[in-house]
Amino acid sequence: MSEIREIAREAREASRILAKVRSDRKERALRAMADRIEGATGPLLEQNGVDVRKAREVGLPGPMVERLAMTERSIREMAQGIREVSALPDPVGEIVRMGRRPNGLVVGRMRIPLGVVGIIYEARPNVTADAAALCLKSGNAVILRGGSEAFHSNQAIAAILRETLVQEDLPREAVSMIPTTDRAAVREMLQLEEYIDVIIPRGGEELIRAVVAESRIPVIKHYKGVCHVFVDASADLEMAESVCLNAKVQRPAVCNAMETLLVHQDVAERFLPGMVARFREQGVEIRGCPRTKQLVSDVKEAREEDWPAEYNDLILAVRVVEDLDRAIDHIARYGSDHTESIITRDYASAQRFLQEVQSSVVLVNASTRFADGNQLGLGAEIGISTTKLHAYGPMGLEELCARKFVVLGDGHVR
Amino acid sequence: MSEIREIAREAREASRILAKVRSDRKERALRAMADRIEGATGPLLEQNGVDVRKAREVGLPGPMVERLAMTERSIREMAQGIREVSALPDPVGEIVRMGRRPNGLVVGRMRIPLGVVGIIYEARPNVTADAAALCLKSGNAVILRGGSEAFHSNQAIAAILRETLVQEDLPREAVSMIPTTDRAAVREMLQLEEYIDVIIPRGGEELIRAVVAESRIPVIKHYKGVCHVFVDASADLEMAESVCLNAKVQRPAVCNAMETLLVHQDVAERFLPGMVARFREQGVEIRGCPRTKQLVSDVKEAREEDWPAEYNDLILAVRVVEDLDRAIDHIARYGSDHTESIITRDYASAQRFLQEVQSSVVLVNASTRFADGNQLGLGAEIGISTTKLHAYGPMGLEELCARKFVVLGDGHVR
Repeated sequence: MSEIREIAREAREASRILAKVRSDRKERALRAMADRIEGATGPLLEQNGVDVRKAREVGLPGPMVERLAMTERSIREMAQGIREVSALPDPVGEIVRMGRRPNGLVVGRMRIPLGVVGIIYEARPNVTADAAALCLKSGNAVILRGGSEAFHSNQAIAAILRETLVQEDLPREAVSMIPTTDRAAVREMLQLEEYIDVIIPRGGEELIRAVVAESRIPVIKHYKGVCHVFVDASADLEMAESVCLNAKVQRPAVCNAMETLLVHQDVAERFLPGMVARFREQGVEIRGCPRTKQLVSDVKEAREEDWPAEYNDLILAVRVVEDLDRAIDHIARYGSDHTESIITRDYASAQRFLQEVQSSVVLVNASTRFADGNQLGLGAEIGISTTKLHAYGPMGLEELCARKFVVLGDGHVR
Repeated sequence: MSEIREIAREAREASRILAKVRSDRKERALRAMADRIEGATGPLLEQNGVDVRKAREVGLPGPMVERLAMTERSIREMAQGIREVSALPDPVGEIVRMGRRPNGLVVGRMRIPLGVVGIIYEARPNVTADAAALCLKSGNAVILRGGSEAFHSNQAIAAILRETLVQEDLPREAVSMIPTTDRAAVREMLQLEEYIDVIIPRGGEELIRAVVAESRIPVIKHYKGVCHVFVDASADLEMAESVCLNAKVQRPAVCNAMETLLVHQDVAERFLPGMVARFREQGVEIRGCPRTKQLVSDVKEAREEDWPAEYNDLILAVRVVEDLDRAIDHIARYGSDHTESIITRDYASAQRFLQEVQSSVVLVNASTRFADGNQLGLGAEIGISTTKLHAYGPMGLEELCARKFVVLGDGHVR
């Protein structure tokens, strides 16, 4: 048996034990993990230093090196993140919708862990601790496969988590880290459907497409976040300005930042010149449709490839649309099913937008930046899904569970 | 653009319209479909006759020809099935768990159709009408790809459904039938993740494995149903006998029939001889473990390959186990995550079985035959999933939906 297969088989064994572990024991283990991570700040920084030096040597771009680098503060935050996960409600064992059938059978649905979760991710080492904590809390075993740039950091973090598991009398194989950055290992992992229940890739579109193409295991994914705000004819324009500014500039590099602004033609002339001026104060480059260009000077013309673009940067595509229908059509055609918001005072427009836009998060009069597990009340998120199966939108502890049917009878036969 | 891609693209367009269609219009269309199918009994039997003759010519096995053949009665039942789906509650638009966040944002989750559902199935033509009705009711467009044996029957049924859609002013492309039995068409269909949201294969394990291996689209599947009944030490043995008999012989060819009987060693001597005699009266062949053989005469010895076997026939594997733990271990090792039942009077055994058996349907004191959408209160089922993602167990109208987040703000920014 290959090493990867053996890791997966052991994770499957561990998952059977984990599924039965009580909440208080899982919580104690998580708190112990947080403590030990803080206690190992020195060794962690040392191992991270190896990665960072290597990254500089091979000429990794500055922002990527920055995301890779750990600090005393980022380690404290990592530990704090684990403590927060520990304090969330345990979803396992909750029975929903229990009721009696006409024949007296009692039928309900009980949340159970998915089993073994495979996470394939890039760069940032804190994902190692985050993902492991969420999986442990929800009773899942996790197999981690981090990026090659963070290899030493990830191994060091995982080693601490595994030591803690043993000390807490839980199976060490509840958290596994693939011990190689060999691509063949990932390919093999993606075939092991008898041991792994779900694959969650976190990283760039290329990574995710490669995983989807090769995996026999269900994949929960989002390729990109091309989020829209539509400023309706009836919008409170002051509110629109504040929401749009927040959606674009508060954190432009994240997937729930606005990438395209759609403006109803009836308010474009009143709204756009001032709005663009505010954006420009913040260093945002505007790429506009012809009508936008007529209303605002010095706007670069948007090309067809700007509409589906995820800039993740201080760039914004702007389009003036005839009406709500055109806005909804634009979103359906160019959007990524991630997050869209309408700014309106009109009841019918709000209702139609909520009903007809099929993205995973649809907002009225709020910034797209709220498309986040924490903000929406899930506590923490293991990822965001823009595939409608299983989870759609931010995915928290509940989405790391399945629901099985439980049926209580009294000798019932058909 | 290829023909398959064009069908999928049109289905995607249709799905956007369907998602908005009110329940009453969908119900009216379904009732009209049922009426037109009944009205077309003659032409349907004629087209079905072409398939049946061809099947006999190529020497298809008798039971397969039987499943293929339609009758006046089966056409009436098909129409009745559509009417029953029409009467089920529409899941689309239901908002669950709406509540207020600390910052005043109102967050809920709204059920929306998955979008485009691809169904790949074998033999029985009634699946064409069943699947189309469930998809239409839940606001999904469906692309059907039936088996080559039922080609003419399926085309004839689909044509009636499509005519009715047009007459009811709904998009004809809400129901599409792949117009060829060419395997390359299926392969192409499985790559169209931009148009198709989920693939549901219904058929033998070989078909399903081929679909999983090739699909980039999420697949909801169950490979097989190796269902267990465990007769605990404290079981009411009369109840155990009645439940086991029902689970095995009421319909042995279906996936929720019992395939392996596990018996606690403390009751094996009292229970097994009588139970086996009852089974033999019904023509069931017993394949037993060594201890079973000691207790009952003339039992064929079970081999290792009997434990994971789905016989779908009047054959039963029987094993005497030391205790509940061994029973749960056996199920985890050889089971298919489908359906398992415990017969017991002991509170702790029932609780442990419910908690620790991770199959999609877990029963206490009831026949495995209740693992069925209708019996569990889903109304009807589009399939059964033994993969924990999205749906686990029987899958009804709700599982043909996703849940998007809807967020109501008042100018909220982060």
